[in-house]
Amino acid sequence: MASKRIGKQTVKIESPVSIAATAAIAGPKEGDGPLRLYFDMIIEDEMWGEKSWEKAESKIVKETFSRLLSKADKTTGEIDYVIAGDLLNQCIAANFGLRDSEIPFFGVFGACSTIAESMQLGTMLIDGGYADNVVALTSSHFCSAEKQFRFPLELGTQRPPTSQWTVTGSGAVLLTNQGSGPYITYLTTGKIVDMGIKDANNMGAAMAPAAVDTIATHFKDTGLPIDYYDLIVTGDLGLVGKTICADLLKRHGFDISDRYNDCGVMIFDCKRQDVHSGGSGCACSATVFAGFIYQEMMKGNLNRVLFVPTGALMSTTSTQQGESIPAIAHAVSVERDLSS
Amino acid sequence: MASKRIGKQTVKIESPVSIAATAAIAGPKEGDGPLRLYFDMIIEDEMWGEKSWEKAESKIVKETFSRLLSKADKTTGEIDYVIAGDLLNQCIAANFGLRDSEIPFFGVFGACSTIAESMQLGTMLIDGGYADNVVALTSSHFCSAEKQFRFPLELGTQRPPTSQWTVTGSGAVLLTNQGSGPYITYLTTGKIVDMGIKDANNMGAAMAPAAVDTIATHFKDTGLPIDYYDLIVTGDLGLVGKTICADLLKRHGFDISDRYNDCGVMIFDCKRQDVHSGGSGCACSATVFAGFIYQEMMKGNLNRVLFVPTGALMSTTSTQQGESIPAIAHAVSVERDLSS
Repeated sequence: MASKRIGKQTVKIESPVSIAATAAIAGPKEGDGPLRLYFDMIIEDEMWGEKSWEKAESKIVKETFSRLLSKADKTTGEIDYVIAGDLLNQCIAANFGLRDSEIPFFGVFGACSTIAESMQLGTMLIDGGYADNVVALTSSHFCSAEKQFRFPLELGTQRPPTSQWTVTGSGAVLLTNQGSGPYITYLTTGKIVDMGIKDANNMGAAMAPAAVDTIATHFKDTGLPIDYYDLIVTGDLGLVGKTICADLLKRHGFDISDRYNDCGVMIFDCKRQDVHSGGSGCACSATVFAGFIYQEMMKGNLNRVLFVPTGALMSTTSTQQGESIPAIAHAVSVERDLSS
Repeated sequence: MASKRIGKQTVKIESPVSIAATAAIAGPKEGDGPLRLYFDMIIEDEMWGEKSWEKAESKIVKETFSRLLSKADKTTGEIDYVIAGDLLNQCIAANFGLRDSEIPFFGVFGACSTIAESMQLGTMLIDGGYADNVVALTSSHFCSAEKQFRFPLELGTQRPPTSQWTVTGSGAVLLTNQGSGPYITYLTTGKIVDMGIKDANNMGAAMAPAAVDTIATHFKDTGLPIDYYDLIVTGDLGLVGKTICADLLKRHGFDISDRYNDCGVMIFDCKRQDVHSGGSGCACSATVFAGFIYQEMMKGNLNRVLFVPTGALMSTTSTQQGESIPAIAHAVSVERDLSS
């Protein structure tokens, strides 16, 4: 086993890899939610002046990337790699949104876990000495996702109580070897977990076992106590999946309930905003991290966070062919102050 | 700039990262082509006993992965990461084909350049000390790709002369820090290049400028002479794109024509097999590398190869909305003998 590996799935990052800046752009519904004050920008409508939802999503990606660089006072020439992906077929939101960036590009697909995958790869590329600055970015869009994965919006199809609302927006993180924190300290990379759930309107239940597997593995690999973290936050399990995740972890001997939340639950006021089980989509955990979590860390209100975005690795074709839903979750430890 | 970076887009790998083994499974048409003797297995029909083309593609992935481990005499427990992707929406061939592997998983999407992206990331994860063994794997399938990207096969739609034939198959590479070559020595990561080509039946023309950009950058970054390599081989430009690529490179002062070939041209006997401009798909460069190139290196017939898979980063939605085709190419240097 390589020297930086601790346990089967975890890497300990010894050099200081910092998050120099984050940027988050959100849609109108997210901008009406409890985290509204944490976003850099809230777009007024889902089209944002474009001719299609997909073009609007690419524009959100492009603008989020541009805001990130301007907040960090960096030029594109200073960025060594961009690692990005999204939910659209062939990841076109990222590909088109970043096509003018002129930066070495790695496209990734981890469904709604994508921001964690890109942050993990980016952290290793910096810690390994291959890059000074890496951007990790993802996006999703309610309308382009509904159109692609479910039903035409114009049908007004009723949504079951377990369903989640895809977040419109994009979140981006600038990783660097030159910053002063928050630092990335551990990476636990998930395995694909498929417990046989087939209901594409109950992603929380499909993804919860993957989150459980990764969180339990993280604590086994690192030997850290649960109260090492101020906050353990899963990707987008929503209300249904969050309960399953906490219960399953408790059964495995990990009671995280007094410091646990879920980005899908946090981003919306679920009852008032009528989003049923909560938010989802690549942008859900990405905007909650780039907005709320990062800013609360910078203010000193959070010191150590275990960030565990979750993804459902299915497509409409696999669902139509009767397949169950494989899921994955990746954990990233972020710490404000390494001396404490 | 980090110490291992040379130039803007290239990394020099100083530690010995070897390719311990490769595996390639190909479809019946590929098995009737000039490289037939280099594949580990040729499946008899495109369904391979499954109920859908997508399930058949996942089975090809699963079997290729299993063959790779058995050829290298490795267990899944010895593999630190799998990095894989494919052309299907949400990369379901890789996600379903590898869902039982129990290995930390990074999903990637670089269209037909995916095998190079996964080899680049895998090489840096090993060289950086995060892994001992990494599997890079991709797949594609003629029928699942035609169904998804073009027309129902049952229509018998006529294909234009510039079109390419998606390769059915999967290619996999086991990267390790414990082997004795062939070694991976340089990685040049591509930028997204979009020259405005809109014809989804002329991918070679759309991708050629990306290959030109990456190959020219590779030689500028490394300062190596063109004759450093025995073979410079692009991903799947096909006959049309190959000619454009060689011509454009010559205009930029890089005459590679006496040592240049393209995986899309190599995998089929284009005229006899009626594939028009040649092969394409994630499996095209992956099976040509895992089959022909790797075996010829092991025999001593090739010593230094610059492997440059190319990808077209569009979707049917982007094409239908009138967008042009962004493309990318990543270069990986593979050398049999480091002492020469």
